[in-house]
Amino acid sequence: MAHIRLDEIVARFGGELIGDGSRAIRQVATLAHAAPDEISFLANPRYRDRLGATRAGAVVLTADAAADCPAACIVSADPYAYYARLAQWLNPLEPASPGIHSRATVESQLPASVSVAAGVCIGADVQIGEGARIGPGCVVGDGSIIGGNALLHANVTIYAGCRIGARVIIHSGVVIGADGFGFAREREGVQGEGFGQWLKIPQIGGVVIGDDVEIGANTCIDRGALDDTLIENGVKLDNLIQVGHNVRIGAHSALAGCVGIAGSAQIGRRCTVGGGTVILGHLTIADDVNISAGTLVAKSIGKAGTYTGAVPLLEHADWLKNFARLRHLEAMSDKIRTLETRLAALEKKS
Amino acid sequence: MAHIRLDEIVARFGGELIGDGSRAIRQVATLAHAAPDEISFLANPRYRDRLGATRAGAVVLTADAAADCPAACIVSADPYAYYARLAQWLNPLEPASPGIHSRATVESQLPASVSVAAGVCIGADVQIGEGARIGPGCVVGDGSIIGGNALLHANVTIYAGCRIGARVIIHSGVVIGADGFGFAREREGVQGEGFGQWLKIPQIGGVVIGDDVEIGANTCIDRGALDDTLIENGVKLDNLIQVGHNVRIGAHSALAGCVGIAGSAQIGRRCTVGGGTVILGHLTIADDVNISAGTLVAKSIGKAGTYTGAVPLLEHADWLKNFARLRHLEAMSDKIRTLETRLAALEKKS
Amino acid sequence: MAHIRLDEIVARFGGELIGDGSRAIRQVATLAHAAPDEISFLANPRYRDRLGATRAGAVVLTADAAADCPAACIVSADPYAYYARLAQWLNPLEPASPGIHSRATVESQLPASVSVAAGVCIGADVQIGEGARIGPGCVVGDGSIIGGNALLHANVTIYAGCRIGARVIIHSGVVIGADGFGFAREREGVQGEGFGQWLKIPQIGGVVIGDDVEIGANTCIDRGALDDTLIENGVKLDNLIQVGHNVRIGAHSALAGCVGIAGSAQIGRRCTVGGGTVILGHLTIADDVNISAGTLVAKSIGKAGTYTGAVPLLEHADWLKNFARLRHLEAMSDKIRTLETRLAALEKKS
Repeated sequence: MAHIRLDEIVARFGGELIGDGSRAIRQVATLAHAAPDEISFLANPRYRDRLGATRAGAVVLTADAAADCPAACIVSADPYAYYARLAQWLNPLEPASPGIHSRATVESQLPASVSVAAGVCIGADVQIGEGARIGPGCVVGDGSIIGGNALLHANVTIYAGCRIGARVIIHSGVVIGADGFGFAREREGVQGEGFGQWLKIPQIGGVVIGDDVEIGANTCIDRGALDDTLIENGVKLDNLIQVGHNVRIGAHSALAGCVGIAGSAQIGRRCTVGGGTVILGHLTIADDVNISAGTLVAKSIGKAGTYTGAVPLLEHADWLKNFARLRHLEAMSDKIRTLETRLAALEKKS
Repeated sequence: MAHIRLDEIVARFGGELIGDGSRAIRQVATLAHAAPDEISFLANPRYRDRLGATRAGAVVLTADAAADCPAACIVSADPYAYYARLAQWLNPLEPASPGIHSRATVESQLPASVSVAAGVCIGADVQIGEGARIGPGCVVGDGSIIGGNALLHANVTIYAGCRIGARVIIHSGVVIGADGFGFAREREGVQGEGFGQWLKIPQIGGVVIGDDVEIGANTCIDRGALDDTLIENGVKLDNLIQVGHNVRIGAHSALAGCVGIAGSAQIGRRCTVGGGTVILGHLTIADDVNISAGTLVAKSIGKAGTYTGAVPLLEHADWLKNFARLRHLEAMSDKIRTLETRLAALEKKS
Repeated sequence: MAHIRLDEIVARFGGELIGDGSRAIRQVATLAHAAPDEISFLANPRYRDRLGATRAGAVVLTADAAADCPAACIVSADPYAYYARLAQWLNPLEPASPGIHSRATVESQLPASVSVAAGVCIGADVQIGEGARIGPGCVVGDGSIIGGNALLHANVTIYAGCRIGARVIIHSGVVIGADGFGFAREREGVQGEGFGQWLKIPQIGGVVIGDDVEIGANTCIDRGALDDTLIENGVKLDNLIQVGHNVRIGAHSALAGCVGIAGSAQIGRRCTVGGGTVILGHLTIADDVNISAGTLVAKSIGKAGTYTGAVPLLEHADWLKNFARLRHLEAMSDKIRTLETRLAALEKKS
């Protein structure tokens, strides 16, 4: 890996350098573990006490922290974004060798710049953009389209008829385009075995994923029932997320792991959703909404802001005493109302 | 795709036709996006206001909505089930070419009608029924049985010794027959590294899946510890569901995405479970129980009905004020009781 | 399968035999389903009423239950651990044939004792220990290390640069080493499309997994952002668990299905976590903490004990009445305080 001097970093990425510009940096690292040829960053004020002891060759930080820094520093209004750009530059994606591995099974014409690994199966009428790389064991169904410089890690499955944008990163185990969960309950059957059985609704919509989207491991995005499921540009999905059919996720929204989104939910742009949150179907969430982890979203949210619904944890014995009362909240409220009435009568009398 | 006339549809599927029976229909579509050669449906009254503007060539609806329909319509008591049957007929599964791909590794004798794609690994003593299709990258362990006309999409894993019924549909990334989560905690170890370690309980049961089951992407169904895990006929499982060892799911139950079911839970027939719900182990849920999304089921449910346990979300500031009180519900209840006593004393006096 | 006599069992595993030591046992089974050549166990007192009717040839149980046992029995202070050891002995892992399948793609030198199935892709500079077995369709990235006698079931994905200990068992669909969810939000963009977009933070840490760990189907363990993600010896992870970047899980902790752990959370040793629990990032959980299913852990837990946070379920109509009050808990508390003041004034007067 190449080294870069601090003055070269500042020339390339901006910021104000305090200290020796000739110091050479090899890699990024945490404040606690950085070596003298590594650069660290301080973005979260809670870690400020780690600054004094760092052995880092340099630190990216905000102006107010510069005085406490024992090493050279680069002052930036947004140290975390600065660090992101620098870390990307120091850690470019390793180039894949273009071409189709002899053990891949490919039924479409692909550009020579595409890299297809062993064990891949690509169906008919698939289009893949220049420079895309398809990891071992991936399956791409007939007629799907994958944008230029997209990166599919190993064992990704794309069903037929999906469209994936440029520079999209898809992690292993992801499934895109499986059937949405659509069934009509049979009400006409005779009571007994036949009654209540489910009729499958064919899922004939597709999935459309914009540019610069990243999709975490084992996440699932179902195809639409009739229209398409839409993931707009720049959306970031963590691992083990379920996106139901006909969901739309607006541009630059980011969803943490284990989120579940039921069918036809419409999520705005630049939203964030905490881990484990469940969003019910057929509702609408405005742009710039932040939803805390572990929340159940059962109604539309019409206004930007932060929304929360999870309960605090307690030691189990305290929980037993307190949470059991949840079943009696209405009775407690009634008792308060009765007390108010009786007290008012007494007050009047006295 | 073939066209079908409205009078042919009614002859085949029933219902009352209002309008020109000679109109030809090519596909199903939403009210909003249907073209004149497409048929739509109105099942949910909340979408009734979309009826007036539809360009659909025909609409399946209930009798009360017929007067508002600008196009031909088919009156049905259950438009959604009607539409399901019609959509299935218009969108038959594309035929797979029977035979074993040269890049599949198959150690069992299979009927000539079975279709096995590239990259598939099928172990010894596997039985697969007529017309089944096994997608690219699937793995089927020794001694497993797969029913006729079953459809395994790409990258499905079936461990050894599992039985899967006829016409079952399994989506990509599904894992059937992995070991259940069974460990005995070592209490006899010396304090320190050895203490508290877990002894694996061999999972020697299997998985038995009935006919007409559908299993969503990346869902997991563990094998039994001693007896089998059972998924009865017609069950529908959405994506990313966890089914623990020795669970039984009764016929025609439907579970939404991200549900977790712990070991030995017994779920009745025709139940529905909302997304993200967690069902604890060793409990029993009666037939015809509906559980809302995001609920924790910690006790058996003995009676049909709808059960709910999730909390509402609030704007974060309101949540902080209100939900913090959860820790003090018992104290609030005590205060109310004290007030009642004191007030009764005063009332007696006055 | 071989038979073993009861007196041989006691000679090998300890415990006190009551009954005929010459009886031969073939397999373990439940009390309800055991045949006369099978041995069962009674560990959970709630199943004691099943003891009388068992047809088992012998039962492992505690001393207090021995009198009720209709068959031979082995008395142990810890019947479940006893049964675990016996069941392991009766059900050894079937030996895999060593060697590399002709349809595996392997770019590293492996010991002759390693078993590599069809469809496997192993990158360059990979080290695999003696006796390890790699199931069909697995992918192991460049430079990863897998310990001796490890068992990777079918379709497991290990990214480059991960270290996996000895005797680790990894179930199908598991993804180890995918990028952690690290992005810096762009604040400097112009309002509109560019504003709010996410900059990827390269994830250059690895994953280190200790010895004797077991990882359930479709679970994901992300690589670290800068330092490594750590899973210590003896940890047991169930299915569909999300482990974020830089998490540390202490030795001999066990996590049930569908748990989500956000980045940099530190979990102690010998902890247990119930299904569906969500643990937020950058917090610390002490050793020997038990967290109940369905809990949201939003703060550090500094002390061993059991912690719970889920709400009880109710019939839907009762839930509507009671849980709506959650939005008004602060108001209820205020009303109680007002009542107390007014009542005190009255009491003073009277």
